[in-house]
Amino acid sequence: MRAVTFQAPYEVRVDEVEDPRLKDPGDAIVAVEATGICGSDLHIYHGRVKIEPGFVIGHEFVGTVLAAGDAVTRVAVGDRVLGCFQTACGRCFFCMRGLFHKCDFSRTFGHGAALGDLPGSQAEQVLVPGADLVLRPVPEGMNADVALFAGDVLGTGYHAVVDAGLRPGDSVGVLGLGPVGLCAVQAAIAFGAAQVFAIDSVDARLALAAQFGATPLHLENDDPRAAVRGATEGRGLDVVVDAVGDPRALESAIRLARKCGTVQAVGVYAERCEVHMGLAWIKALRLHTGHANVIAHVDAVLALMRAGRLDPSPLVTHHMPLDAAPDAYALYDRREALKIVLQP
Amino acid sequence: MRAVTFQAPYEVRVDEVEDPRLKDPGDAIVAVEATGICGSDLHIYHGRVKIEPGFVIGHEFVGTVLAAGDAVTRVAVGDRVLGCFQTACGRCFFCMRGLFHKCDFSRTFGHGAALGDLPGSQAEQVLVPGADLVLRPVPEGMNADVALFAGDVLGTGYHAVVDAGLRPGDSVGVLGLGPVGLCAVQAAIAFGAAQVFAIDSVDARLALAAQFGATPLHLENDDPRAAVRGATEGRGLDVVVDAVGDPRALESAIRLARKCGTVQAVGVYAERCEVHMGLAWIKALRLHTGHANVIAHVDAVLALMRAGRLDPSPLVTHHMPLDAAPDAYALYDRREALKIVLQP
Amino acid sequence: MRAVTFQAPYEVRVDEVEDPRLKDPGDAIVAVEATGICGSDLHIYHGRVKIEPGFVIGHEFVGTVLAAGDAVTRVAVGDRVLGCFQTACGRCFFCMRGLFHKCDFSRTFGHGAALGDLPGSQAEQVLVPGADLVLRPVPEGMNADVALFAGDVLGTGYHAVVDAGLRPGDSVGVLGLGPVGLCAVQAAIAFGAAQVFAIDSVDARLALAAQFGATPLHLENDDPRAAVRGATEGRGLDVVVDAVGDPRALESAIRLARKCGTVQAVGVYAERCEVHMGLAWIKALRLHTGHANVIAHVDAVLALMRAGRLDPSPLVTHHMPLDAAPDAYALYDRREALKIVLQP
Amino acid sequence: MRAVTFQAPYEVRVDEVEDPRLKDPGDAIVAVEATGICGSDLHIYHGRVKIEPGFVIGHEFVGTVLAAGDAVTRVAVGDRVLGCFQTACGRCFFCMRGLFHKCDFSRTFGHGAALGDLPGSQAEQVLVPGADLVLRPVPEGMNADVALFAGDVLGTGYHAVVDAGLRPGDSVGVLGLGPVGLCAVQAAIAFGAAQVFAIDSVDARLALAAQFGATPLHLENDDPRAAVRGATEGRGLDVVVDAVGDPRALESAIRLARKCGTVQAVGVYAERCEVHMGLAWIKALRLHTGHANVIAHVDAVLALMRAGRLDPSPLVTHHMPLDAAPDAYALYDRREALKIVLQP
Repeated sequence: MRAVTFQAPYEVRVDEVEDPRLKDPGDAIVAVEATGICGSDLHIYHGRVKIEPGFVIGHEFVGTVLAAGDAVTRVAVGDRVLGCFQTACGRCFFCMRGLFHKCDFSRTFGHGAALGDLPGSQAEQVLVPGADLVLRPVPEGMNADVALFAGDVLGTGYHAVVDAGLRPGDSVGVLGLGPVGLCAVQAAIAFGAAQVFAIDSVDARLALAAQFGATPLHLENDDPRAAVRGATEGRGLDVVVDAVGDPRALESAIRLARKCGTVQAVGVYAERCEVHMGLAWIKALRLHTGHANVIAHVDAVLALMRAGRLDPSPLVTHHMPLDAAPDAYALYDRREALKIVLQP
Repeated sequence: MRAVTFQAPYEVRVDEVEDPRLKDPGDAIVAVEATGICGSDLHIYHGRVKIEPGFVIGHEFVGTVLAAGDAVTRVAVGDRVLGCFQTACGRCFFCMRGLFHKCDFSRTFGHGAALGDLPGSQAEQVLVPGADLVLRPVPEGMNADVALFAGDVLGTGYHAVVDAGLRPGDSVGVLGLGPVGLCAVQAAIAFGAAQVFAIDSVDARLALAAQFGATPLHLENDDPRAAVRGATEGRGLDVVVDAVGDPRALESAIRLARKCGTVQAVGVYAERCEVHMGLAWIKALRLHTGHANVIAHVDAVLALMRAGRLDPSPLVTHHMPLDAAPDAYALYDRREALKIVLQP
Repeated sequence: MRAVTFQAPYEVRVDEVEDPRLKDPGDAIVAVEATGICGSDLHIYHGRVKIEPGFVIGHEFVGTVLAAGDAVTRVAVGDRVLGCFQTACGRCFFCMRGLFHKCDFSRTFGHGAALGDLPGSQAEQVLVPGADLVLRPVPEGMNADVALFAGDVLGTGYHAVVDAGLRPGDSVGVLGLGPVGLCAVQAAIAFGAAQVFAIDSVDARLALAAQFGATPLHLENDDPRAAVRGATEGRGLDVVVDAVGDPRALESAIRLARKCGTVQAVGVYAERCEVHMGLAWIKALRLHTGHANVIAHVDAVLALMRAGRLDPSPLVTHHMPLDAAPDAYALYDRREALKIVLQP
Repeated sequence: MRAVTFQAPYEVRVDEVEDPRLKDPGDAIVAVEATGICGSDLHIYHGRVKIEPGFVIGHEFVGTVLAAGDAVTRVAVGDRVLGCFQTACGRCFFCMRGLFHKCDFSRTFGHGAALGDLPGSQAEQVLVPGADLVLRPVPEGMNADVALFAGDVLGTGYHAVVDAGLRPGDSVGVLGLGPVGLCAVQAAIAFGAAQVFAIDSVDARLALAAQFGATPLHLENDDPRAAVRGATEGRGLDVVVDAVGDPRALESAIRLARKCGTVQAVGVYAERCEVHMGLAWIKALRLHTGHANVIAHVDAVLALMRAGRLDPSPLVTHHMPLDAAPDAYALYDRREALKIVLQP
C-alpha cells in the first residue's frame, strides 16, 4: 500500500510499504478515507521529535474497518470509524483510573519506536491495536474531515476545558489560536463559559474565534490584561488555557488568571524554563499540564459533534490527495493552513 | 406602603402595611420594580404551607436600593439590583461550606414565621437582611422581568444541572416542564449536554423545550423510555432531573437513568413515599435532593444571562400591576400562566 | 475437583465437578487456598437469589495461579493471588469511566446464569476471566484469610466511605455491624473521620467496633439520635453508611444525617419501599446506592492492608475445611460466625 | 499592654503599646494565653518581608475572649478560643467559594500595613475582626500550646494533603520536615495514605517523621528516588508535598511524582525560578500552589485533634515568657527549635 514516510528533516515521501496484518485478537485494520496533518507531525518534520527514516507517520484518521480480531466488540468489519491518536491497554494502573493518555503500554500512531513502534495513519491502511478503546463508529452523515477531529484536536480542546474544571458561568482565556486553541474556544463556549477571551496575533484566527462566540484580543494591538480586568471586576479569569507551550504564554496565563484560578497548559513543554512561581504562589493557582486524554473523551466529543454543539469544520482549510503529502507538509510548515486533510 | 398579604387559603389581598426600616448594619431596603409569582407561592395560596394571615408574601424581586446599612459593600444606594429568594448568614457551618441554602440562620422572603419571619417582596419595598449575599446589581440593559429569574427559578435550573455533576457530552432528561424544568432544559443545553429529553404532557411546554433545543417527549403520546433507550444505545440517561416532586416522577427518573447515573430531585417532596430502591440500588444510582443553592449560583447565572447563554424571557407570559395580585394568583392557580410578573 | 454446589434452599453439597480450563487469552486458573462464605452467599442459600441446582458457589478467594492465557500480564503462573468477586471487561462505557462494578459484561463468581454463568470459588480451582482486572498478588507475608477480604468485604467498606466523599474531620455513622459495616467503621477511622458512631444491637459487634476506635451505640439501649446530636452541636452526621439494606435503617440514616449530608446505602435493596423523601428533601441529602466497585479499589485496599492501616483479621471467626461446607453454611446461617474461611 | 514589636532586621522588642478596642460589631478581643513563633515570623525578622518598625507581630494564638461585638455569634466573652492566622470577610467572591485564604478583604495578624494593618498576637491582647470566622472554642482539656497549631501550622498540613486530593491508599512524599512538613506527614497518615516518605537532611526531624509512621529518607545518605521507585513498582508517588519552597525541592517533587500525580507546593515561592516544565508536562502533573486555607479547615482540624488523630504536641520544643521574645527569635533563627510558644 502507499503511505507517507518520514525520511529526514523537511523530507517526507509517499512510499509503497507492506499492508498491515492482524496480530492480536484485539486488533483491527482500517482502510483510511481521510487523515489529517497535525501540529505534532511538524515536530517530526522539523526533526525535533526524532523517528526512524522510513517510518509511516500520521495519527488522525477516519476509514472503514477491513478486518477485526475475535476480541473486538465495539466495532465490526464494514463500520465507518474514526481513530484516537494513541492506544491504551485498558488494564494497567493508569487505564484503571481512566488516565488512558498515560497508559503504561500506550502506543502513538506514527511516532516511531520511542512511542510504541506503531505505523501511522497517513496511509491506505492502518493497524489498530486494542481497537475497542481506539475506534468509534462515525455518526451517520458526518463528514470524514470533521470526524477525524474527535480523535485528536477537538478531543484536546474538550480536555483543556474539562480537565481545568470549568464551571458554567466561568470566564475563560485561551492563549494561542491554532487548531487546538480554537477547539478549546469552541468547547469553553459550548460548556457554559460566560466569557471567553481568545488571544493571538493572527487576525484570521481571531476572526474565527469571534465567529465561535469569543471576545478576540490581539496580543499587540489590544491590551489583554486590561480587557480581562475590565470584564471581571479586576479579578482575572477563572480558567486560562495555554495552547502555545512557551514560557511567555505561561507567564501571560499566570498573569491573566484570578486568585485560585486554573492554568491549563495543553501546549507542549519539552524543557526546563523560567516560571513566575512567586506570582503563581501568591495567587494560589493550579497549573495542569500534559497532552489530552482523548480516549476518555471521544464518546462525549462525538455526541457533541453529532448534536451540532461542537463543529470543527471551519478549521479545515485544505483537502489534498495522499500522494501530495510532501507539498502538504511544506504548505503546513509555512503556516498557510489550519488543517490539511489527506485523502488516500 | 402597599403589599400583597396572605389572608386565608385561596385569598390574598393588597394591603397598606408599614414601610420597612433598616435594623442591622448589613441590611438594605429595595424599592421593588418587579416581583414574580412562583410555584411555591401557590403552596401558600393553597394553604399547604401554613403562614400567618396578614403576612406579606413573594420572594422574587428586582428594584432599586433605597437604603443600606454601614456594613453593606457589594451594592449601594441607587443601584438597580435583583434579590435571591432567601438570606444566609455567611458564617455558620453550612455557609462556610458554600451551602447557603441550608444556612442555620437563613430566612426566606414571604414564608411566614416558620421560615424566618421575613416579609415578602410582593410589595412596594422589601427589607433585605445580609444584603451582600442576597443582592446583586442587574447587568446594564437587562429587563426586570428577566433579571428576577436569576434569584430563584433560573438559579434552580442552574442548580439542578450543576449539582447533578453534568459533564459535557452527557445525555439529560428533565421531567416536568414548569418554569424550573424549562430552566433546567436551557441550562443543560448551555452547559454542554449533547442530548436533552424534555418530558411533560402539556404541548405548549413541550414546544418551548423544543425551541430551547431539547427533544420533546409527551408522557402519554410518546414512549419516553423507548426514545431514551434508542438514543443511548440502550443505556439510559446520565442525568435525570425530577422537576415535579411526585413519586411517579421519581420512579420514571429512576427508570430513565443509566447505571451509576444521577437523579436530581429539585421538585418538592414533603412526605414519605414509595421509592423503587431495588431498582435504584441495582443500578447504583445517586439521588440528589433539595431546593437550589441560589445564593451560591447567582453570580454565574447573571454572567450567563448577560452573555445571552441563558435567557428566561420566553417564560414570562404575564405582566400585571401589584394591585391585581388577587386576580394574578387566581389565574396562576388555573395554570394559565408560566410566569406572572407583578409591577408595584 | 471438589466444589461446593447449591442444590436447593438450605442445601449445599460438596461435589466432584470437572476441572476448569482456559478459554480466552485473558483467562487464568487459580488453585484455591482459602475461600470465604459471605452474606450474599446466604441469599443464595435461602433461595432468595435463585441459581441453578448444581452450580458451584462462592466468590471470595486466595490461591496460586496454575495457568494463565497469553494476554495476562499482571499476574503469572506460580503467583499467590487474591480475586475480586466479579469480573469486568475493561472496555465498555462503564469500565472506561472506572465503573467496573457496572460493567456491561461483568460476571460474578458463583451466582448462576443470571450473573454471568461463572462457577464459584468454593472449589479446589477457579477459572478467572479477564484476570488482569480481577487478580492481584498477595503482599508478601499476608495470610490468606486476611487477603481474601480485599476482593469483597473490605473493598466494600472502602467503597462505602470513599464513594460517600468522606473528608478528613467528618463525623460518620455506620448502621449495621456485620462484616461490611465493621469494615466501613475501620475504613472511616483510617481515612480521617474524627468521630465514627457504630450502631447495632449485638454487643459483640459493638465491642469490635469500639476496639476499631468507634463510639458504639446500641440500637435499643442507647439513644443514637441523641448521642449524635450531642456530639455534633445538634447538626447530625456528615456521612451515614447504611450497611443493613432495610427501610428502617434507611429512615434512621436519613434522620442521623446533617443537612446536605450523604447517605451511602451499601446494604442490599431489592424492592420498592417507603422512604422519607420529605425529610431527605428538606435536608437536601444525597443518597448513594449500589454494591461496591471492588475492582477499582483493590490496589488501594491492599496497600492499606500491607501498611497495617486496614486489618480485617479480627473478623475471621472460623476456619473450616471445604468438605465441611454444609455445616459451615448452617453455622453461618445461625449468625454464629462473622466470617468463615473454607480451606480446600 | 506588653507586645512584641518588630524594630529592624534581627531586632524585636517587647514594648508597652495601647490596649486594643472593639471597632465593629463583628470584632472580639482575646486575652492571649499562648502565642507561637512561626517560620513566617522569621521572614519578617530577617527583613525579607518588610513591615513598619514598631508593628506588633505574631499570628498564632490561644486565649480567652475579653470582649465581643454584637454581631459575634460563634464565641462569647469568657470562652477559651484559638485563632486562625488571617481574617476573611465571608461575603466576597472568594469567601463565597470557600476560598477564605484569598478573601479580597483578608487581613493577616502581625504582618504590617501591606497585609491589612492588623496588630499581631505576640501580645497580652489581640483584636480579632470578623471573629466568627477566625475564632473557635478550644476543645475541653486541650493544652494551649497544642491548640494554637490548628489555626496555622497544622491547618497547613491538613491543607497540603486535602487540597492535593489525597485518596486513601495513596503513596505520598513530603519534602522538608519543618513544622509544616511534619504536620503534612501526620495528616497524610491520618487520612489514609498507605505509604508516606518523609525527606529531609536533619536526623532529628527524620526521626520524628518516622515516629509519626512515615518512612524517613535522608536527602544525601539515602536515595529517595530509588526508594520511591522500589516501593511503587517504579511508578512514583501519587502526591508530593513541597514544604520547602525552593526550586530544587520543586524539581525533586516533579521527579518523585508519578504520571498524573499532584505536586502540592505549600512552601513559599516569591520569585521567578527555573521549573522542569518539560518533565512536568510529559508526566501530565498537576501543580497546586499557595498558602493554606486555614479558616476553611479549622473545624475539621480541631475535631481530629480532639479525637487524637492529629497531635502536634511533639513539635513543641520550647515554652518561654513573652518578655523573652528577643531571645526566642534568636534561638528560633539558629534553627534550635521546631516550635517556640510564648506565654504572656
